Amino acid sequence: MSGGNGDEADRVASFNAFRSRMNERILAEDNQVIRRFFSLDTQTYRAGALDVKTKELLGLVASMVLRCDDCIAYHVGQCREAGVNREEFFEAFSVSLVVGGSIVIPHLRRAVDFLDRLESAGHSAPPAHSHE
Amino acid sequence: MSGGNGDEADRVASFNAFRSRMNERILAEDNQVIRRFFSLDTQTYRAGALDVKTKELLGLVASMVLRCDDCIAYHVGQCREAGVNREEFFEAFSVSLVVGGSIVIPHLRRAVDFLDRLESAGHSAPPAHSHE
Amino acid sequence: MSGGNGDEADRVASFNAFRSRMNERILAEDNQVIRRFFSLDTQTYRAGALDVKTKELLGLVASMVLRCDDCIAYHVGQCREAGVNREEFFEAFSVSLVVGGSIVIPHLRRAVDFLDRLESAGHSAPPAHSHE
Amino acid sequence: MSGGNGDEADRVASFNAFRSRMNERILAEDNQVIRRFFSLDTQTYRAGALDVKTKELLGLVASMVLRCDDCIAYHVGQCREAGVNREEFFEAFSVSLVVGGSIVIPHLRRAVDFLDRLESAGHSAPPAHSHE
Amino acid sequence: MSGGNGDEADRVASFNAFRSRMNERILAEDNQVIRRFFSLDTQTYRAGALDVKTKELLGLVASMVLRCDDCIAYHVGQCREAGVNREEFFEAFSVSLVVGGSIVIPHLRRAVDFLDRLESAGHSAPPAHSHE
Amino acid sequence: MSGGNGDEADRVASFNAFRSRMNERILAEDNQVIRRFFSLDTQTYRAGALDVKTKELLGLVASMVLRCDDCIAYHVGQCREAGVNREEFFEAFSVSLVVGGSIVIPHLRRAVDFLDRLESAGHSAPPAHSHE
Repeated sequence: MSGGNGDEADRVASFNAFRSRMNERILAEDNQVIRRFFSLDTQTYRAGALDVKTKELLGLVASMVLRCDDCIAYHVGQCREAGVNREEFFEAFSVSLVVGGSIVIPHLRRAVDFLDRLESAGHSAPPAHSHE
Repeated sequence: MSGGNGDEADRVASFNAFRSRMNERILAEDNQVIRRFFSLDTQTYRAGALDVKTKELLGLVASMVLRCDDCIAYHVGQCREAGVNREEFFEAFSVSLVVGGSIVIPHLRRAVDFLDRLESAGHSAPPAHSHE
Repeated sequence: MSGGNGDEADRVASFNAFRSRMNERILAEDNQVIRRFFSLDTQTYRAGALDVKTKELLGLVASMVLRCDDCIAYHVGQCREAGVNREEFFEAFSVSLVVGGSIVIPHLRRAVDFLDRLESAGHSAPPAHSHE
Repeated sequence: MSGGNGDEADRVASFNAFRSRMNERILAEDNQVIRRFFSLDTQTYRAGALDVKTKELLGLVASMVLRCDDCIAYHVGQCREAGVNREEFFEAFSVSLVVGGSIVIPHLRRAVDFLDRLESAGHSAPPAHSHE
Repeated sequence: MSGGNGDEADRVASFNAFRSRMNERILAEDNQVIRRFFSLDTQTYRAGALDVKTKELLGLVASMVLRCDDCIAYHVGQCREAGVNREEFFEAFSVSLVVGGSIVIPHLRRAVDFLDRLESAGHSAPPAHSHE
Repeated sequence: MSGGNGDEADRVASFNAFRSRMNERILAEDNQVIRRFFSLDTQTYRAGALDVKTKELLGLVASMVLRCDDCIAYHVGQCREAGVNREEFFEAFSVSLVVGGSIVIPHLRRAVDFLDRLESAGHSAPPAHSHE
C-alpha cells in the first residue's frame, strides 16, 4: 500500500528531496566503505561497451524484479533522460513482469504512475550523482 | 513503515481506487505480453481441481512470504469473498510466518489491519478482474 | 544447475538421509531457540481450522515462490501423503509460477522430477517429524 | 517511496503506536503457532554466548539485507538501547550495503533518517516485548 | 555449493538435457495456465521496440540479481547467440553485482564458468523454445 | 537438494578450489567496476569500530537469511578463523532462523555440515583475499 494513493501533491519532488537530503547525511559520515560504494554505484552506469540507455534499462529491470519502488523510480527517471520511449519502457516492464511474476504488479503500477507524472509535469530526472 | 499508521481516512478504498486506475492505464498500453500476463493471472485463480478458496489461500500465503502488502491486501479481500473465516485466516498467516520468519511480522500486522477494516466497514473485495 | 541432472542413483533417498542426519546433529546441540523453532515448524502443519492437505499445499507454494528446492521436495512428499493428486499438484504449481514468475521454472522442473520419482519408485515421504 | 518523505509529524511515535496496537490484535487471537512464534522471537535476542548488542546488530543486518523498513527501525531502536554508537551503526550499515547491494540504499536512507530522529528527539526504543 | 566444482564431464550438455526432458514432462500435463505461461515466456524475448540482444541482457541481469543459476545459464547462452561479446557480458555482470551485492558473487563465478565452457567447447545455446 | 549429500570426497577443498580459480578468471577481466567491488568487499570486513569477529558474524547472518550456501560456507570459515566458538555459531544460526524462517533450515543443515567438516578435518579457511 506504500505510496500508492494519488492524492499526495508531488510524489516526484518529495521523492527527490528526501533522497538528496539523506544522501548528504550518509556521505557526511566518515565511513569509507559506504562512500566508495556510492562512488562505484555511479561509475556502474557510465557508458562503456554498453551505452547508458542499455545500462539504465538493466538497472530498471533489476530494480523491478527485486521490487524496490525507490530504485524503480530512480531508474525510470534516468532511462527517460537517456531517451527510452514509452514503448521501450513497457517492453522492459514486460520482461520484469514475466521473470518476476504477479508479485511485481503493484510495483509496475507505481512505476507507470511515476512515469506518467514525469511525462505530464515535465519533471527532470534527479541529479546524475544520485544513488538508486 | 509503509501504510502502517491508522490515520488515513480509508485505506481500503484508496487502495482499490489506485489499483483500478493504474490497471486501466497499463492495459490501455499496446503491450501484448503484459495484457496476456494480466489475463493469465485472472485465469490462475478460477476453480479447477482445487476450489477458489484453496487457490486464494495459496495466493495469500505466496504474497505473505514474498512480503508484498498490496498483493496481501488483494488476496485477503478475495479470500474473504471465497468464505475464509477468521480462524482459517490466522492459520494461513501462521504458515506464512513460520516459513517466512519474523521478517513477515510487519506484513502480518498490515494484513490483520486490512482484514479488520474489511470486516468492520463491510467493504466489498475489489472487482474480480483486478490483479494482485 | 543444482541437483538437476538425472544420473544420481537415488535423489529421494540421499535427500532423506542427509536431512535426517543433519537434523539430528542440529537438535543435539544445546540451543533452545533452534529446538523450539523445529518443534513449532512441526506444529504448524497439524490439522486445525484448515486440514493437513490444505496446509501442506500452502507450505509447498510458499517454498516454490521462495525457491528452495529442499523445502519443495519435502512438501511434495508431505502433500502426496496427504492425498494431493497430480492435477492438484499442477494447479498449486501454476499459482506458484504465476505469482513467482519464470524464475520459478527451474524449481518447477525439479519439483516435477521429484514427484515423478516418488510416484514411480513408490518412495514414502520423510518421517512426519522432519523439517523442511 | 514508502515512508520516505519527512513531512509526517512523528514517524517514530506513529510507528510504535501502530506496532503496539496490531501486536495486541494478533496476540488476542487464539492461534498457538503465532503466539509461540512471537515468544520465540523475543527469546532469540536475549543474552547468551553472544551479548544483546551483538545479537541486535545481527538482527539489524538481517533486516537490512532482507529490506524490511519496519524491522530495520525496530532493530535500530534496540541497538541504540544496547549501546551501539553511530560509528558502529555505519559499519553494520556498510556490511548490509556490500552484501545486499545498491538495492539496500533506499532502506539505508530510511534507517539513517530513523536513527537521526531517535537521536534528536530523545525517543526511547519500543517496549522490550515488541516484535520486529 | 551447487554446481560449483569443475569435475563434472559436461555441465552444459547435462543442463540442456535435463531442461529439455523436464519441459516436455511439464507441457505434457493438461494444465492451461502453465502452458500459457511457457508460451508467454517465449514471446517476451522476441524483437519489438527493444531488440533481442537487449531483451536477453535484461533477462540475464534479472536472473543474476534474483540469483537463479539455471536462469543465468540459459540467458548467458541466449545472449551469446544474440551477439553479446565478452566485454558486454562483464558490464552486464557489473550492473548485477552492484545492484544485487556480494551475495551475487557465487552466481557470477558460475556464470563466468558457464560462459567459458560455451566459448571453449563451441556449445550451441539451448533450442529457442526452451524456458529459463 | 544442492550439495546436500555427504558422499562427495571433499566438499571444503572443492569449494575452495573452484572459488579461487573463478575469482582469478573474473579479476583477469578488464572490468574496473567488478575489480573495485571485489576490493571493497575485502575492505568491508576489516577491523574498525566493530572487530573482525563481529563483522564476520554479520556477514554470516546476512548470508543465511539471503540463503546463499557458498556465502554461508565462506563466512563460516572466516568466523572460525576469527575465533567464533560452536555455541556462538548456533546463536548466530538461531537469529538467522527466526528472522528468515523455516526456509533457512536446508541452508542451516549445510552450514552445520560445513562447520563439522572444518572442525573434524582441520581445514583452514580460504585465503583472506577471497570473496563470498
